[in-house]
Amino acid sequence: MANNLQQVMVAISDPTRRAIIGRLAHGPARISDVAAKFPMSLTGVCKHVRILERAGLVRRTRHGRENTLQLHAEPLRDVAKWVSGYERFWNSRLDRLERFFASKKEQSNS
Amino acid sequence: MANNLQQVMVAISDPTRRAIIGRLAHGPARISDVAAKFPMSLTGVCKHVRILERAGLVRRTRHGRENTLQLHAEPLRDVAKWVSGYERFWNSRLDRLERFFASKKEQSNS
Repeated sequence: MANNLQQVMVAISDPTRRAIIGRLAHGPARISDVAAKFPMSLTGVCKHVRILERAGLVRRTRHGRENTLQLHAEPLRDVAKWVSGYERFWNSRLDRLERFFASKKEQSNS
Repeated sequence: MANNLQQVMVAISDPTRRAIIGRLAHGPARISDVAAKFPMSLTGVCKHVRILERAGLVRRTRHGRENTLQLHAEPLRDVAKWVSGYERFWNSRLDRLERFFASKKEQSNS
């Protein structure tokens, strides 16, 4: 699990790979259609897709010469879990800010 | 903001940097104390710390020759936001699994 978190973290650390994930969130797509959206070669896009596949984020189905890609977002749950461990830091800071502005408002009202 | 998300994503894509974040979640620490926990040189740890600093995840305070590091977890909120955009995928899958097991249970009860 921890090992897969590492692969997933590396996979999503690239903007092109995050954009591919974003594209596939709308539904399965042929690799050539996905590639057409990026200013890079098909080979370049295929390399990114392979990294996403190895991280378990994308599944490829071969139909003869066509490759269809499908998003498999479950591994992102580990990322959500990891990051939620730090939620209390920004929440507590927001709480402090809220209290600060609430006290400012009270002062200006009195 | 999108640019900072990229820096943050790269920063957290490394297991040592995630471990440094984990250490600093317990409270501020001297860089030498943090470094002592990792099987790498102080220089190596300092490089990781600089990447965390540039991503806005760690703040360094200099006290003479001592460097104290403090976690600044707010930038992780952008990661949480990005990943939450895909939550519906694993939730809907969990929902399907739940319905599947519920129907199995009903079948075995009837």
